[in-house]
Amino acid sequence: MSKEALVATVKVKVRYSETDAIGVVWHGNYLRYFEDGREAFGEKYGLEYLEIYTNDFIVPLVQINCDFLSPLKYGEAVLVETKLVNTKAAKIIFEYNIYRESDNKKVAAGSSTQVFVTKAGEFSITVPEFYKSWKQKHGLE
Amino acid sequence: MSKEALVATVKVKVRYSETDAIGVVWHGNYLRYFEDGREAFGEKYGLEYLEIYTNDFIVPLVQINCDFLSPLKYGEAVLVETKLVNTKAAKIIFEYNIYRESDNKKVAAGSSTQVFVTKAGEFSITVPEFYKSWKQKHGLE
Amino acid sequence: MSKEALVATVKVKVRYSETDAIGVVWHGNYLRYFEDGREAFGEKYGLEYLEIYTNDFIVPLVQINCDFLSPLKYGEAVLVETKLVNTKAAKIIFEYNIYRESDNKKVAAGSSTQVFVTKAGEFSITVPEFYKSWKQKHGLE
Amino acid sequence: MSKEALVATVKVKVRYSETDAIGVVWHGNYLRYFEDGREAFGEKYGLEYLEIYTNDFIVPLVQINCDFLSPLKYGEAVLVETKLVNTKAAKIIFEYNIYRESDNKKVAAGSSTQVFVTKAGEFSITVPEFYKSWKQKHGLE
Repeated sequence: MSKEALVATVKVKVRYSETDAIGVVWHGNYLRYFEDGREAFGEKYGLEYLEIYTNDFIVPLVQINCDFLSPLKYGEAVLVETKLVNTKAAKIIFEYNIYRESDNKKVAAGSSTQVFVTKAGEFSITVPEFYKSWKQKHGLE
Repeated sequence: MSKEALVATVKVKVRYSETDAIGVVWHGNYLRYFEDGREAFGEKYGLEYLEIYTNDFIVPLVQINCDFLSPLKYGEAVLVETKLVNTKAAKIIFEYNIYRESDNKKVAAGSSTQVFVTKAGEFSITVPEFYKSWKQKHGLE
Repeated sequence: MSKEALVATVKVKVRYSETDAIGVVWHGNYLRYFEDGREAFGEKYGLEYLEIYTNDFIVPLVQINCDFLSPLKYGEAVLVETKLVNTKAAKIIFEYNIYRESDNKKVAAGSSTQVFVTKAGEFSITVPEFYKSWKQKHGLE
Repeated sequence: MSKEALVATVKVKVRYSETDAIGVVWHGNYLRYFEDGREAFGEKYGLEYLEIYTNDFIVPLVQINCDFLSPLKYGEAVLVETKLVNTKAAKIIFEYNIYRESDNKKVAAGSSTQVFVTKAGEFSITVPEFYKSWKQKHGLE
């Protein structure tokens, strides 16, 4: 039985403060767009930071990468598409595609990996129960 | 008996990521330079955030203002001069002057006001003991 | 004849990356919300940065100030109210009020002053024609 | 004949504004430290952005990745080690290692890839002459 991937899309407007001296979005700010994407995903599927925190976990990023395909300018908006990669590991892996809204051109792509750490600061090697439940609820295993 | 003002100066290099689409430092980033100034002041005179925190207080900003006198570009460095304004109120007031290092031109000036809030979140209308002691130690009353 | 003030309001969500180590929005990021406010104003009344630029001017900030009234946390959203202050001077002055969306509490207030500088870098002591026309169109003189 | 790798190291202090709501440096800010590393490399070996620009090129990032190994807190400083990866391609590839200054623990590692684009916006598939000269001068081919 094939499963639909969980995907959320959110529109983000480029902020003037995000541009740099050559007139385009400074590359580090794409990580903000990724974060906007994760947040939109969390809202859509009930997996928000604050909810995770209520379950006594934080989910720090341990890896991130980004390909910058085309520059973005002030005045433009993007659509950030965030897809959960289904994995059995005690990790949350997302893939991102960022499209310029005006012409639908893909301007960046990347991925991120998060792990589960208890509030007490302990790294979890097993998948926390609350996340297992969440996955089952959404047809992932 | 005249008292010398407490002043600290720190050099800060403009970061590329701090510039904006017209090629100069985005105005909001001057507040980072002010913060670098406060930190340098704290280091010089033993009034660091972490030390304040050890005394069960945080000192949130309640007011800030800045005059932008001349633009700054990537590749430039500034000297941030931070002066404590002596006040009897339960406040920490700083005045800032930012000079471009290359020609000593003043490029910005401003001030900030901080108040004392306990870790429990209570605003303090009186000057905390630790700060009174600190002031006395430095010839301020 | 009394004139209605020109006001624009825009909703802005607090970004996780905008928080700081005491769990609230870092004060400098309020300047981003002001900028979001100016942008919303520009969109509503046809006074956008890019349009100004087309008229051969940039409008750099020369002064900003902000009162921080109440902390903001991740997960919250604000309404940024941006009002143009009518002045005969060759300046653009805005006043801002920022309200937390959930309880309508005012969390910050401030103002900003911008001047007209030609693309060539010359400061304009008179009000540029395009701005005069824009003001007349909107019932300001 | 083995060649020494070109490596530059620079100390960077964590800024308060770089921390986030869980009290550690927000992950996206590591890209600022990488940029500080590239800048230090450029200063040490004469390959600065402004110099590249004088040669009619900009060198936008097309890929970046980062492993986050250990959190950083306000009050800490890091050493950013930036090493040029020798490649025959028309690319500038750097590898980074970030160490906490206090205990020399590696807290992050990553790499970046930049390409050559002319000021006119044309992507260069061949290595520009100025960069060839620079490489030869430094014993790279």
